[in-house]
Amino acid sequence: MTEPDIFYILGNKVRRDLLSHLTCTECYFSFLSSKVSVSSTAVAKHLKIMEREGILKSYEREGPFIGPARKYYDIAISKTYVTTVTPNLFWYRGLDLNESPIEKVNVDLTQIPMEHESFLEMVSSFLELSSELEKILLALQVIESRRDRLMKELKERYLKEIGDMTQLAILHYLLLTGEATVEELSDRLNLKEREVLVKAQELDRFVPLIIKDGTIKIDEDKLKQKLGGVEYAGENKGRG
Amino acid sequence: MTEPDIFYILGNKVRRDLLSHLTCTECYFSFLSSKVSVSSTAVAKHLKIMEREGILKSYEREGPFIGPARKYYDIAISKTYVTTVTPNLFWYRGLDLNESPIEKVNVDLTQIPMEHESFLEMVSSFLELSSELEKILLALQVIESRRDRLMKELKERYLKEIGDMTQLAILHYLLLTGEATVEELSDRLNLKEREVLVKAQELDRFVPLIIKDGTIKIDEDKLKQKLGGVEYAGENKGRG
Repeated sequence: MTEPDIFYILGNKVRRDLLSHLTCTECYFSFLSSKVSVSSTAVAKHLKIMEREGILKSYEREGPFIGPARKYYDIAISKTYVTTVTPNLFWYRGLDLNESPIEKVNVDLTQIPMEHESFLEMVSSFLELSSELEKILLALQVIESRRDRLMKELKERYLKEIGDMTQLAILHYLLLTGEATVEELSDRLNLKEREVLVKAQELDRFVPLIIKDGTIKIDEDKLKQKLGGVEYAGENKGRG
Repeated sequence: MTEPDIFYILGNKVRRDLLSHLTCTECYFSFLSSKVSVSSTAVAKHLKIMEREGILKSYEREGPFIGPARKYYDIAISKTYVTTVTPNLFWYRGLDLNESPIEKVNVDLTQIPMEHESFLEMVSSFLELSSELEKILLALQVIESRRDRLMKELKERYLKEIGDMTQLAILHYLLLTGEATVEELSDRLNLKEREVLVKAQELDRFVPLIIKDGTIKIDEDKLKQKLGGVEYAGENKGRG
């Protein structure tokens, strides 16, 4: 797949919805088909396009019950894409999420002047800003690599220890979005709203949540208390 | 335009090419049409789609010669989009490029453990990484705002002082990509390769370039020399 083809893939809502479900749990065809609001023919077409473009790979595996093998799909790429569109700039870049060892990035724009006497000073400042941009992109790449790896571990651990796919789907959504309304989760997971609430209450036994006024989020204070607040010196940094 | 519709717009090569030309110079219909390799009917269709989606705006203005007014196009959005696609994560975000006053960002991942005993520790680390991600996105937003503003000033200044659109187009491309081959520039600007070389040599009188083995880039050392190397204390930082 050449880089910008990802835009074509992401340019369709059904494909975006399918990708969302695929990041959360193991998905076979009829499961995916039940989660989106288009015909199974359309789902098959979108999955085929994404498989052809190398975004997805599929494999067959026996289901838990007697019957034909099911076709499962997995996302086959690990990338972050950045693009800027303004009247003066247009560029895009795909970053491979292979974890690199960089752990600290300092971006400092105070040295780069805001006003310029000469044209060459402007060129020089633009090059300086571009070099700070490269540092930012590197940091983005490292953070997303780590979040990807950690989410993988989280999913595996949750399924092993608790084993409830719907609770995991709620947790996955909350971790990615910060918070969610019951309606959003109901649409996303194709559940009734009262089912979302029941599942969220079950999840709350393992991961402290704030469920209030139709909104659900992770209770970070309670989480810190549970962890004893001593293990991570950096716990309070940058959160506010 | 809802956020992800930008992916639909960017999912087409002709539209991407049109956007590239639009960021570089003032563009009227027949100019744009001459720069891409599809029919003018197709160009009209793509411009119409982008105008309808709010990506472009158009206005009419008299040309330099007697004749009907020309229709010009401008990019009407200023945004950076970030999206991650992995087997475990899928999200996207549009960042508005309104300059914010933040000038320093420190991202420090050393406090966030790589290995975790308990499930809750994993959740906590994921939240920490997400909070560092927010800082990165903020920094990205600030840098792209500044690059956008500076590129606008650069374009205006160059046109006022030197006035050659093709030289400016070469400079614009070099500033965005770091370096370019003569072939790339020839394709991008729809010029013959020897014309690119002539224009690059003209540009070199104003902005020092290295033109060597069919590759063109800005001569940063010479640029620093020309600027006296004293005006920016931070000149050498982060470039290497």
